[in-house]
Amino acid sequence: MTPASLTPPLSPGHTIGILGGGQLGRMLALAAARLGLHTHIYCPNEQAPAFEVAHSKTIAAFDDDAALKRFANSCDVITFEFENIPLQAADLVAEITPLYPTRKALELSQDRGIEKNFLTDLGIKVADWWPVENTADLENARKACGGPGLLKTRRLGYDGKGQTAIGPDTDLSDAFAQLGEQPSILEKMISFDREISVVLVRNHQGHANCYDIPRNQHKDGILRQSTIPSGLSDDLEKKAHEAAIAIARALDYRGVLAVEFFVTNDTENPQLIVNEFAPRVHNTGHWTLDACLCDQFENHIRAITGWPLGTTNRHSDAKMTNLLGASILEWESLAGQQDAALHLYGKQGSEAGRKLGHMTQISLKTL
Amino acid sequence: MTPASLTPPLSPGHTIGILGGGQLGRMLALAAARLGLHTHIYCPNEQAPAFEVAHSKTIAAFDDDAALKRFANSCDVITFEFENIPLQAADLVAEITPLYPTRKALELSQDRGIEKNFLTDLGIKVADWWPVENTADLENARKACGGPGLLKTRRLGYDGKGQTAIGPDTDLSDAFAQLGEQPSILEKMISFDREISVVLVRNHQGHANCYDIPRNQHKDGILRQSTIPSGLSDDLEKKAHEAAIAIARALDYRGVLAVEFFVTNDTENPQLIVNEFAPRVHNTGHWTLDACLCDQFENHIRAITGWPLGTTNRHSDAKMTNLLGASILEWESLAGQQDAALHLYGKQGSEAGRKLGHMTQISLKTL
Repeated sequence: MTPASLTPPLSPGHTIGILGGGQLGRMLALAAARLGLHTHIYCPNEQAPAFEVAHSKTIAAFDDDAALKRFANSCDVITFEFENIPLQAADLVAEITPLYPTRKALELSQDRGIEKNFLTDLGIKVADWWPVENTADLENARKACGGPGLLKTRRLGYDGKGQTAIGPDTDLSDAFAQLGEQPSILEKMISFDREISVVLVRNHQGHANCYDIPRNQHKDGILRQSTIPSGLSDDLEKKAHEAAIAIARALDYRGVLAVEFFVTNDTENPQLIVNEFAPRVHNTGHWTLDACLCDQFENHIRAITGWPLGTTNRHSDAKMTNLLGASILEWESLAGQQDAALHLYGKQGSEAGRKLGHMTQISLKTL
Repeated sequence: MTPASLTPPLSPGHTIGILGGGQLGRMLALAAARLGLHTHIYCPNEQAPAFEVAHSKTIAAFDDDAALKRFANSCDVITFEFENIPLQAADLVAEITPLYPTRKALELSQDRGIEKNFLTDLGIKVADWWPVENTADLENARKACGGPGLLKTRRLGYDGKGQTAIGPDTDLSDAFAQLGEQPSILEKMISFDREISVVLVRNHQGHANCYDIPRNQHKDGILRQSTIPSGLSDDLEKKAHEAAIAIARALDYRGVLAVEFFVTNDTENPQLIVNEFAPRVHNTGHWTLDACLCDQFENHIRAITGWPLGTTNRHSDAKMTNLLGASILEWESLAGQQDAALHLYGKQGSEAGRKLGHMTQISLKTL
């Protein structure tokens, strides 16, 4: 069947379905509410943080076809807040109700190998990589790589999960076993000067607006901080924007797209290397909530509902810091910082590494 | 019984009860959600716009004691989004759970006569006024007034409702009948140059932060536009802030308080005359959502939960326009304005004069 599609804008009072109910779904629901649009959250987790700010909810698994169909029939457009939605579920709802971003973006972002081939075909640089199906592949890949690498599962990795470093002395059987002997890739480790990302929004007419580029700092594979401006040269920022727009165009993209880059540490001629893209609102775009008139969540809602896009201009410099695990216990002193906006996701518990909130410091040019 | 009180701050995960479920309750609920706090909305109206962004809801009348008690027992602190909550309901919930702002603010703001006496006792100027219990009172009041006046019900007036102009030729029986022959006041009409308001937030330690002052334009008693800055002299702005802080202090206030002033058109020596105050977040503070790091809704939540207050500084000039009645039908072209943020309240229908949303134009100093 052909997927459903949406051309005229959805007027206020219509319902946006969101597959997934984490903090991204929650912030999407808050943005939709500000525009007078309803949201319906679909999530298997009873405690999903998005539920309490949404008009309606479905608690069901992603392989519950009957629940997916009921959900799709209750929505006027559907989106997702994470890229690991099973394709079957996406296809099922998309037959009934328009789904944006489209399947192609979802499919490509679910497999690191397919994603990298797609980028290479577009003429966009990625790290050297080798497919790994077994320990022998990994042995050959390490030789070809000739230096430090990262073994990553092709599917379902996020926040540093599903990856492990490979050095000359690493026991390769152990490393492959550690990732559950899943189809993987070995990626050559990049010597980078900094990490940056482009968050853009694109509408169904092919118009794309890019937010300014943050410099991102990760630790243990988890984003810690995004700083705007990035300190990158105008020329490299322009190239990064162009690469991200080219990716969006090739995907016939609609919504917010995030593309993560490494900037190599060749001082003479630094190169942009794409790490990965995410077909959704993105942690490195959270600063837009407090430094822009129209944030990434609202712009995603605008794009998928056919509304005019909002500006991506910013009014302030910003530094976004993720609040992970026990750092949330400092909420009172964080709330007292007069130059910062605090965002808490309403999650229970404070397990190490769990994203429980974020804080954005703003260089407020007070009037 | 002594009302319950709250001293230590409520940590994320606690529940704020809100009496009333209109757009102010909705924007309070959205602010609470951003801080990881739950909300429980109490409103007799099944279609209340605040319900869909709240954790829980009670649909019940304000004289339903059992429902009020259940509500109070489910909340950790309670506030209200409009000042016409029956005092009995407020007292009932306040015996169980702390209620902020406190009863005194509610009581005073419910009766124009009591409110004006309170202000006069504080040395704050109000328009000349006379109590009106019957047509004979009104006749005498018109004589004493000696010029155009406004007949206003003492209680339950808002958005231009419950008031009518009185001139030399007005039929006084008709005018009094038009207001339902309720206890009223005749207020001398002020020749004013402009209307302004102070929106401030005050915490339990008596610390108050004032937002910058908007110039407000009303038509038919309904706010149409608020413009920041107000164009008022620094000296008058300072005096207005001081008067508002004095009111808050006298009320032992906790939360956001709004005070509306007329600035008289004496070019030599313009005077500030208080029109009225509102013990709640206020339409003339909606611009703070888009021009400040911490808006009035979040600051109200912070004050009533004992959190550190947020900054009231602004990063941009702003012009807030209410979207009344059929103007909402222009939503698509309004959404396309690149210098403006659009806020829609999710209400059904578009009756004339009904507040359905607002738009804030921002002088975005893009970086």
